[in-house]
Amino acid sequence: MTNTSALAQAAPFSESERKAVYKAIYTRRDVRDQFLPDPVPDEVLLRLLDAAHHAPSVGFMQPWNFIVIRAPEDRERIWQAFSAANEEAAAMFSGERQSTYRSLKLEGIRKAPVNICVTCDRTRGGEVVLGRTHNSSMDLYSTVCAIQNLWLAARAEGIGMGWVSIFHDADLRDILAIPDRIEIVGYLCLGYVEQLYERPELEVKGWNRRTPLEEMIFDGKWQGDP
Amino acid sequence: MTNTSALAQAAPFSESERKAVYKAIYTRRDVRDQFLPDPVPDEVLLRLLDAAHHAPSVGFMQPWNFIVIRAPEDRERIWQAFSAANEEAAAMFSGERQSTYRSLKLEGIRKAPVNICVTCDRTRGGEVVLGRTHNSSMDLYSTVCAIQNLWLAARAEGIGMGWVSIFHDADLRDILAIPDRIEIVGYLCLGYVEQLYERPELEVKGWNRRTPLEEMIFDGKWQGDP
Repeated sequence: MTNTSALAQAAPFSESERKAVYKAIYTRRDVRDQFLPDPVPDEVLLRLLDAAHHAPSVGFMQPWNFIVIRAPEDRERIWQAFSAANEEAAAMFSGERQSTYRSLKLEGIRKAPVNICVTCDRTRGGEVVLGRTHNSSMDLYSTVCAIQNLWLAARAEGIGMGWVSIFHDADLRDILAIPDRIEIVGYLCLGYVEQLYERPELEVKGWNRRTPLEEMIFDGKWQGDP
Repeated sequence: MTNTSALAQAAPFSESERKAVYKAIYTRRDVRDQFLPDPVPDEVLLRLLDAAHHAPSVGFMQPWNFIVIRAPEDRERIWQAFSAANEEAAAMFSGERQSTYRSLKLEGIRKAPVNICVTCDRTRGGEVVLGRTHNSSMDLYSTVCAIQNLWLAARAEGIGMGWVSIFHDADLRDILAIPDRIEIVGYLCLGYVEQLYERPELEVKGWNRRTPLEEMIFDGKWQGDP
């Protein structure tokens, strides 16, 4: 059962390999509107899901599942759920900020040919999970790592992805038959793209600015506002 | 302020670029013991942190900070905090499982020359954040995406990384002067490596098995246990 000789040489990547990894990281976008209708072949989708499945997971728990939604009628129902929640969300902003909010397209549920609901089964590893003993969120965080793997792999495949978070969980549970004990972590829209924003769409559209990296880094201790 | 012409052509990656992205995803490991003492140059660390800073964030909120810890005396204190928590964790397992747990090295705090505490400032975007209105965890999830970016970039640079989650938050707050309003998301150990496990260490050491991908995927609706 135990095999400690499974270590192998692990060189840094070549210059061109390293560039490719950074290219995925820097050109990945949260896509809402650039989806083409072209179908995503099963073998490509499986590559993306396998990339997700190779994310780190706390205690090697692999708590995730991927519900793949393609049927237009299901996506229509899910869009209706989004739409109602998004109306509530818009009402939380006021003045010019609300107008801007309403002008933004925040999902591609009907336009993207493939949607994926990513869930986390918090009971999968039993009650006591290695690494989750002192931080109960670790299984959710593992699931997010899977989503980020999927996102970067998708970029490399020429597939755009958007993460839609404006839902009442109860609506998604109802439409997708997700049991209460299963946590919904992310709802993703995927499809081929030919164009992407050169910078994050919310930056391009003036919603927020990028903070300089230096302001994010502290040396040795917390150095921000108390 | 608004510029909607910032769309650019976004082709799929070349075959070799795509392979590099998948190589990062498949060969990334949660490293605990393979760290070399070689220092990580500032410019390399900045590349990793910039990769993290280019993660998706809800409402372009960029809620993260990175506390970089290099001082051996600080890492020693943090290791002591880990060590006490890990003793509690070990006691939660019984019999053979506890022996196996105790045989595992679960951190590289003192061996890895660079440690990074990644935090999330949940107040950064004000009370109402675009995309967080219906899922209050989205800012934490954005921060996890930053960690996964950092992890993959590190792999490409020949740097191994481990995520240590067995702490009482209060201990880290105390040592790193982190205010209560700031959420601690991850504690990372980084250093150059020459060897990595070919498969996840917890799989190699018999703690858990990889679940076949097919069992993770559902078609259209939840199809797992109720």
